[in-house]
Amino acid sequence: MKTVNVAIMGIGTVGGGTYRILTEHRDFLMKTQGIDFRVKKVLDKNLERIRSFGIPEAAAASSPDEIAADKDISLVVETMGGVEPAKTFIEKMLLAGKDVVTANKELISKHWASLEATAKKGGAGLYFEASCVGGVPIIRALQESLQANLINSIVGIINGTTNYILTKMTEEGMSYEAALAEAQQLGYAEFDPTADVEGFDASYKLSILSSLAFHTCVPYTCVYREGITKVTKTDIRMAGEMGYVIKLLAIGKRARDRIEVRVHPTFVPKSHPLAGVGGSFNAVFVNGDFVDDLMFYGRGAGANPTGSAIVSDIVYASKRVSPLYSDFDNNGKAEDGVEIATDFVGKYYISITVNDAPGVLAALSNVFAKNNVSIENLIQKGEKGRAAIFFLTHACNESDVRRAVAEIESQSGESRVENIIRVLE
Amino acid sequence: MKTVNVAIMGIGTVGGGTYRILTEHRDFLMKTQGIDFRVKKVLDKNLERIRSFGIPEAAAASSPDEIAADKDISLVVETMGGVEPAKTFIEKMLLAGKDVVTANKELISKHWASLEATAKKGGAGLYFEASCVGGVPIIRALQESLQANLINSIVGIINGTTNYILTKMTEEGMSYEAALAEAQQLGYAEFDPTADVEGFDASYKLSILSSLAFHTCVPYTCVYREGITKVTKTDIRMAGEMGYVIKLLAIGKRARDRIEVRVHPTFVPKSHPLAGVGGSFNAVFVNGDFVDDLMFYGRGAGANPTGSAIVSDIVYASKRVSPLYSDFDNNGKAEDGVEIATDFVGKYYISITVNDAPGVLAALSNVFAKNNVSIENLIQKGEKGRAAIFFLTHACNESDVRRAVAEIESQSGESRVENIIRVLE
Repeated sequence: MKTVNVAIMGIGTVGGGTYRILTEHRDFLMKTQGIDFRVKKVLDKNLERIRSFGIPEAAAASSPDEIAADKDISLVVETMGGVEPAKTFIEKMLLAGKDVVTANKELISKHWASLEATAKKGGAGLYFEASCVGGVPIIRALQESLQANLINSIVGIINGTTNYILTKMTEEGMSYEAALAEAQQLGYAEFDPTADVEGFDASYKLSILSSLAFHTCVPYTCVYREGITKVTKTDIRMAGEMGYVIKLLAIGKRARDRIEVRVHPTFVPKSHPLAGVGGSFNAVFVNGDFVDDLMFYGRGAGANPTGSAIVSDIVYASKRVSPLYSDFDNNGKAEDGVEIATDFVGKYYISITVNDAPGVLAALSNVFAKNNVSIENLIQKGEKGRAAIFFLTHACNESDVRRAVAEIESQSGESRVENIIRVLE
Repeated sequence: MKTVNVAIMGIGTVGGGTYRILTEHRDFLMKTQGIDFRVKKVLDKNLERIRSFGIPEAAAASSPDEIAADKDISLVVETMGGVEPAKTFIEKMLLAGKDVVTANKELISKHWASLEATAKKGGAGLYFEASCVGGVPIIRALQESLQANLINSIVGIINGTTNYILTKMTEEGMSYEAALAEAQQLGYAEFDPTADVEGFDASYKLSILSSLAFHTCVPYTCVYREGITKVTKTDIRMAGEMGYVIKLLAIGKRARDRIEVRVHPTFVPKSHPLAGVGGSFNAVFVNGDFVDDLMFYGRGAGANPTGSAIVSDIVYASKRVSPLYSDFDNNGKAEDGVEIATDFVGKYYISITVNDAPGVLAALSNVFAKNNVSIENLIQKGEKGRAAIFFLTHACNESDVRRAVAEIESQSGESRVENIIRVLE
């Protein structure tokens, strides 16, 4: 039976989950995959963590060089996270001809092209199913199951932390602050939640998924990004009244050579399959020209689901005769001739507070009309002299909405635009 | 650039869809996959159909032997359907060393082991992603993405016809007969709908999916099968009142060496992700020991989605260095030591009509209690002297339910058990 010796760099949550799967399922994988996977070396500066997973001390590597020099090890898992030193360590392994399996979305989205070049130089493969949406096998699906299709769009709930917070706000009427605090207590959100709540994490993943879906490099710097920190209880309630739920969506669309990539809170119609994706679950909705609509749903994070994706990559890599490269050949920049859109067309929810006086609504309506923003639905709620008016527009240019809103805010100072949220169509 | 010459046997709906994708996306596939796929030969006794897809007559093969003898053709698509002559034709191609891609669930579920043996003899591969759930890439997911997991269960809505009918009954209050007639008119149901409405189609697919999920042969003859023809408007309405929708589910479960495989109408809790899968959409819900819950949702049939799965297999097969075999090595029978369950434990919906007289409910309740069937919920509706009583049981043995029901029916002849439907937990 073939033996594959593996090293793991970084024994945190996900690295630990990977170690557990490989050891607990060693016999199972021998039986079902015909390969004996052995964890030969583990690298982590925290020896306590290594011990806590019951890993024999003899397996603790003193440096990445020790792993790179070990001829028995053919595959290295990177679960350290962050750009450095993960990047340097991975490059060492690739140049030593070892396949690398990583869960590192930030690193892949920022340095994919250069890492792939290094992998080619070393004759090694670079696998990153675990970098996007945890246990949901969306990367393999794009690479091995949807080849027949020109992908039109990919729309996902791909950050568990924000989905947990928004679900709590929706189902229990919590404020953003209270829901965040609960998520932090449960370990779903970091002490510094910026990467999640401001949409950075989702933008890294969207960059990777869009690049694969559209067969061209979509740099993460091109992703329009807006977090959930400004979403209020009022917005959540009004969404509900209007037939929507608010989700942080990552949206990638391609029409010919124009690509639109954006991460922002979004009104999702209650009838849409993504609307029901609650709590820490994630889902990716894909539309291809022949396959039509598809959705992949599952756990987007956690030791075991992400470990499942890593071990899947380990098995997949170990059975390949030669690595699979994305071959964008563009050095991490958008291809010539590919336009990354910065203007969007869509429907918008606009929440405005005004002094409740005769003629106010007429004035607002005039400003919208003058700027080509036509209103589909409107709800007005009065509160002690002030009124809140909630508009849902028909599809229009975002630039028109921005112009209308600026004009409203510049007038007399009494009307205030509280929030603008895009609507999924 | 590598060229792969393909032949298609059977130019019906799915074969035609496959031809269209390969020709319309020839440049796209060259660019994204680096392979030039050419349809060199097409076999169909109906020349009119060949012409209708704009296929040049020179490409029409006169016999399968002509294709088998063509050294340029390395891959053959079978989209004829049915067991014979598809089986004989496929065997010819495999023995000639040609990879075969098929959408034929009946053939694979009935003759998988012998076809795989033939494939090995010919040094060819056998691919059948399109045989289960159309465009939903569930087979590739089981083989290439979920290897890390011991799969605990696989629960699917895997027949579009019955899901269309049940959705119409649920959303529009149609009778089974009216919904079937509409499905036939729209081409979603055959003139003879038996294969779909009696659950044969779903049982073939469940046999294939369970075999892959549980890494052991699950013969289709072992699948417990019950169709949707006895589901009434009343059952649908009562399900709604009790918080459920009725779906035809295909359920495969494994606990140690005991496998449970069954296809039957099922009460699905409205909060379950499968409950929202409507119309002709399909979905497969999988639970693995590390990845936890996953759902794959999409179009389960049709020329384009199924064609997408076939072309995905064509690309996948063309990039493999050696074929992937399932290697159950058991000649199409359940493995020694694997028990295919025939007794189920679960919750049941039981609909009974009775003469509305004092003591009737007490008598029924006594029979249930005596047979260890405990009641969770009960709704009684009176109608002109007769009453209908709808029971929802706690989890119990199906044999106990059957015994209770037989006893009720044997008593005095006044009580009639109208329907028994299993409940998903």
